[in-house]
Amino acid sequence: MKSVRLHGYHQRPVLDEIAEPVVKNPFDVVVRVGGAGVCRTDLHIIEGQWAAAMGVALPYTLGHENAGWVHEVGAAVSNVAVGDTVILHPTPTCGLCRACRSGNDMHCESSSFPGLDSDGGMAEYLLTSARACVKLDPATQPKDVAALADAGITAYHAVRKAIPLLYPGTSCVVIGAGGLGHIGIQCLAALTATRIVVVDRNPDALALASQLGAHETVVADGKHVEAVLDLTGGAEVVLDFVAEEGAEADGFAMTARAGSYFVIGYGGAVHIPTLDIISTERNIIGNIVGTYTELAELMELAQAGKVTLHTKAYPLAAAAEALDDLAAGRVRGRAILVP
Amino acid sequence: MKSVRLHGYHQRPVLDEIAEPVVKNPFDVVVRVGGAGVCRTDLHIIEGQWAAAMGVALPYTLGHENAGWVHEVGAAVSNVAVGDTVILHPTPTCGLCRACRSGNDMHCESSSFPGLDSDGGMAEYLLTSARACVKLDPATQPKDVAALADAGITAYHAVRKAIPLLYPGTSCVVIGAGGLGHIGIQCLAALTATRIVVVDRNPDALALASQLGAHETVVADGKHVEAVLDLTGGAEVVLDFVAEEGAEADGFAMTARAGSYFVIGYGGAVHIPTLDIISTERNIIGNIVGTYTELAELMELAQAGKVTLHTKAYPLAAAAEALDDLAAGRVRGRAILVP
Amino acid sequence: MKSVRLHGYHQRPVLDEIAEPVVKNPFDVVVRVGGAGVCRTDLHIIEGQWAAAMGVALPYTLGHENAGWVHEVGAAVSNVAVGDTVILHPTPTCGLCRACRSGNDMHCESSSFPGLDSDGGMAEYLLTSARACVKLDPATQPKDVAALADAGITAYHAVRKAIPLLYPGTSCVVIGAGGLGHIGIQCLAALTATRIVVVDRNPDALALASQLGAHETVVADGKHVEAVLDLTGGAEVVLDFVAEEGAEADGFAMTARAGSYFVIGYGGAVHIPTLDIISTERNIIGNIVGTYTELAELMELAQAGKVTLHTKAYPLAAAAEALDDLAAGRVRGRAILVP
Amino acid sequence: MKSVRLHGYHQRPVLDEIAEPVVKNPFDVVVRVGGAGVCRTDLHIIEGQWAAAMGVALPYTLGHENAGWVHEVGAAVSNVAVGDTVILHPTPTCGLCRACRSGNDMHCESSSFPGLDSDGGMAEYLLTSARACVKLDPATQPKDVAALADAGITAYHAVRKAIPLLYPGTSCVVIGAGGLGHIGIQCLAALTATRIVVVDRNPDALALASQLGAHETVVADGKHVEAVLDLTGGAEVVLDFVAEEGAEADGFAMTARAGSYFVIGYGGAVHIPTLDIISTERNIIGNIVGTYTELAELMELAQAGKVTLHTKAYPLAAAAEALDDLAAGRVRGRAILVP
Repeated sequence: MKSVRLHGYHQRPVLDEIAEPVVKNPFDVVVRVGGAGVCRTDLHIIEGQWAAAMGVALPYTLGHENAGWVHEVGAAVSNVAVGDTVILHPTPTCGLCRACRSGNDMHCESSSFPGLDSDGGMAEYLLTSARACVKLDPATQPKDVAALADAGITAYHAVRKAIPLLYPGTSCVVIGAGGLGHIGIQCLAALTATRIVVVDRNPDALALASQLGAHETVVADGKHVEAVLDLTGGAEVVLDFVAEEGAEADGFAMTARAGSYFVIGYGGAVHIPTLDIISTERNIIGNIVGTYTELAELMELAQAGKVTLHTKAYPLAAAAEALDDLAAGRVRGRAILVP
Repeated sequence: MKSVRLHGYHQRPVLDEIAEPVVKNPFDVVVRVGGAGVCRTDLHIIEGQWAAAMGVALPYTLGHENAGWVHEVGAAVSNVAVGDTVILHPTPTCGLCRACRSGNDMHCESSSFPGLDSDGGMAEYLLTSARACVKLDPATQPKDVAALADAGITAYHAVRKAIPLLYPGTSCVVIGAGGLGHIGIQCLAALTATRIVVVDRNPDALALASQLGAHETVVADGKHVEAVLDLTGGAEVVLDFVAEEGAEADGFAMTARAGSYFVIGYGGAVHIPTLDIISTERNIIGNIVGTYTELAELMELAQAGKVTLHTKAYPLAAAAEALDDLAAGRVRGRAILVP
Repeated sequence: MKSVRLHGYHQRPVLDEIAEPVVKNPFDVVVRVGGAGVCRTDLHIIEGQWAAAMGVALPYTLGHENAGWVHEVGAAVSNVAVGDTVILHPTPTCGLCRACRSGNDMHCESSSFPGLDSDGGMAEYLLTSARACVKLDPATQPKDVAALADAGITAYHAVRKAIPLLYPGTSCVVIGAGGLGHIGIQCLAALTATRIVVVDRNPDALALASQLGAHETVVADGKHVEAVLDLTGGAEVVLDFVAEEGAEADGFAMTARAGSYFVIGYGGAVHIPTLDIISTERNIIGNIVGTYTELAELMELAQAGKVTLHTKAYPLAAAAEALDDLAAGRVRGRAILVP
Repeated sequence: MKSVRLHGYHQRPVLDEIAEPVVKNPFDVVVRVGGAGVCRTDLHIIEGQWAAAMGVALPYTLGHENAGWVHEVGAAVSNVAVGDTVILHPTPTCGLCRACRSGNDMHCESSSFPGLDSDGGMAEYLLTSARACVKLDPATQPKDVAALADAGITAYHAVRKAIPLLYPGTSCVVIGAGGLGHIGIQCLAALTATRIVVVDRNPDALALASQLGAHETVVADGKHVEAVLDLTGGAEVVLDFVAEEGAEADGFAMTARAGSYFVIGYGGAVHIPTLDIISTERNIIGNIVGTYTELAELMELAQAGKVTLHTKAYPLAAAAEALDDLAAGRVRGRAILVP
């Protein structure tokens, strides 16, 4: 089959012809890929940033944001059948550790991460597990939803945790209206009646944010913290999808007394006197991916038309071009490889 | 009446004879003081650290940790009567703002703070509000419980927030087994079945911690982070009653994946890459004082003998001596002025 | 002033000329009434059903669902000022008991209930308390929102409690699309992405429900339990705004395994084997009015246009006619007396 | 191997010699039984009460409350190894349905129930699943803890749900201090500081309750509802381990305004006017077994000595005698078959 594989760090991945994966273990599932999202993390993988952490041997197939159709199932698989349309949780889990038994898939003690530590979905077929498969309405096009598998679940997870804090009369600031942020805005609009205030450097991103449900938009022009405080008096929740280059300081500064600053992006560092944390009783909340049931819930929103994605399709053979476009800022929404 | 008043910053407070306070407003309550805790914050007040924030005119009476007996009540007071034994929430609140209406007294938009921004309890009588009075069993000696009014409520508030995280099988690290910490340990033992691991520089404090319910104690000798990780593999909750001089970095480092680091002390600063926050989904939780109902609940624990205080009594006339003893580290437990 | 007063049970109330109320206590507020809802409970009061429970001496003024403008305030009132537009929580509370200190106004140990146990709002002026006043945007017309003061808060309270149970992919059944139910549907649509299934005997009510956000409607024709189970497989939450004449048995039967049946209406009785409760782990949840902050939150939804009321205005002099219309089923939406 | 099998309803089970179970599927685990609890449900099975619901073909092996040592594991089992000491969750689950993925094992869509719908643990060996195995300290004697597998988890599950309601100053009534109740009392004492009030007909059971942590005991002599109300003014939580023969009406009557009545036992029926439910906003909470992680947590309490069981051991050959003793009320604590 065709497969987009990385042969060396700081090199473009290439389109190889390799053997199709086959089911070996009872919970294995082979999926015919219908769409594989191209993510900034792929650029970081190519740059070698994940090499040490993941310890993967090259060459291997990229692609950690996948949807498609079930092609083959192991003997113990009962939740999906051949032909089913599925989206895949990014980390197939063991199902036996405390985290799995509590439903906290992202804290599984022995999960894998196809596309990072093993062959991913930028290929015609992908080997995954029954535990990663969320069954979809057969009318769903995998390429339309693939980006929800990673960008989507991460945004949804943070919003879902924030719901109890976002009763009517509150404000929620969204920093960054890009790939994750534009999904987060839609989730907030679908699940709360909070006032949504979006901050971004890019006026086009803010225009899109308004269409998707933002009540207020603020250009990140250096006066944006003051502008947000003027609008809100401090927000009960700040969802920071950037968390680098100063956004992390701005985000905490925009948070109201007794409020919570959610870190979702990464790259920067928080630096806060403990006096500022206790005198106002503010919280800093970590967020990573999400649970299997959260992905299933997000797909309900997608199938109800409450969360939609802007995508640009590329054939597998154009993977390198898609990565170049992403690196160069030429992608609006999400680039999707369609085998 | 006799009153311990501060006439100038960087000066010892002096024992003045001033007029007794009287009820003016319908919810006013005058309390005959039975015990007023001497707190490190009093030293900071004398040093002028709170002068700007509180904007109080000198001279005024110190003492923000008070208990006693009701002496006079305003026309609208219905929850206490003359003669009742009471402990006082540190911040009489408005009762009308969103925070008050939600029970979050410490976030009241217009509370006062006797002993910091107005006359406090190091005196024979104290003017407070019906909303600050928690009625006690008449057998209670105010001097035995006064320190629960501020140190106690703060420790209890943090522990109560942590309860849902501390199911059997978890570990909770307590950093600092001093005034607040030794109450926190007792609250943890009363309200959870978590394994309590206490870290302190002082072996005597650790010996007391063991008596009060700590399951493990660790001397803060530079290898204590490693020692705690060996014992726990990372604690689901870390309660940091120090939060300065490196404790704040240690505390976050001792926190397990998906765990929460509670900041209760202050003086230092957290400095953490956002990648470390998101990759493990850890939280940093602010804490400040507590609610009225939390003080009432803590008094239930005290009256059941589940939380006890080590105190040393001084007469009002010896206030300066008590402050000197505190500054010099000569107080075991809490110094209490008894008019 | 003009006032609609009940002089004897089983008699029509009459329009009397009585003295205007005046402020006596520090937290008293006199409101110039802008709208007073006419409620089925008023019919029950006239029939004497509340006489024993409330022990009120006749004659007195009806009206427990009120909004207007502040006319006079007591000395201690700081949250509203003369001229402010306000809606009134139905039960002015003490502010000092455990329930009040926790924000659970409806469980106050010593609240009053104007319109039931003392003079109500079917008059030109009403005496209430600062603690009952929710300040509104000055552009709000009290007659447009008055019905939110009782019917609205009750529906909102139940929906808000149900939010954590109503993640995407769940179903919520609403039994009864009348005065409370049609507000409940709007609150569900504003605050959740659950599938809303509405059951009512009246096809007109169901048509309105669809306009307000119901995804499915089911006529209560005897086959409705089966129809709801076919649609949902059992609903995670059932909100029963009827709870009499068989609805209470139907409601429990429509509830999914591990689901919750919310009792909001009254008049009937639940009769359920304990085996049925435990074998499916279903809950039966009581609901009564709501908190002050819930009323404030509901007004945010109203001012954002997310909850609207259908009302029919009558002058005070036509109070008896409005009650007759209500009793005869001639009121669509809510009858409102406008002084 | 030896096995206690039921050959016909209304007959005593007999000791058969049958083939040992072997591993067939990748997640199968065969356990050498160390202790199998004898439960009132076994009597009901023999009486045929579960025949229709479970649809099991006779003969089959009884025993749904089991602990032992791992004897053989399937190819995919990673959480336990041969020789491990284990206690078994009563219902091996699929691991793939929404309930399993949320950690709510007892609501699995396709679990089995060994001892009810398939061969159970009153035998030398038992076939179960990796998902049912909770690994224990090797020093644990299975016969000492087996009863926690069903009676224990059920009591623990209810108590754990009640914790947030049981802050200091509250009361919790326990109805029935028998097999489940005496574990519930210990869990309450370990996990809360609530006042524990125990009601039972049997003074001996109440004496044991006092030893285990009950603060008050009340003989169920017809005046017990009044006695409990005198002691508590209504309890915030009532845990009803009986729920038949009038206990279910008493339990609701003992519940405070805004409180919750937990149904854990079964056999009776609740019959309550909806007016009584709403006017006081009381809840009726269903409870069934518990989750895998709850069983693991309970074992932490057991291994810390906070929950202990009174047991009486019988050899497998004396199974019929043990059942007779149970039926005749001759068992104090729990009868355990020890192969």
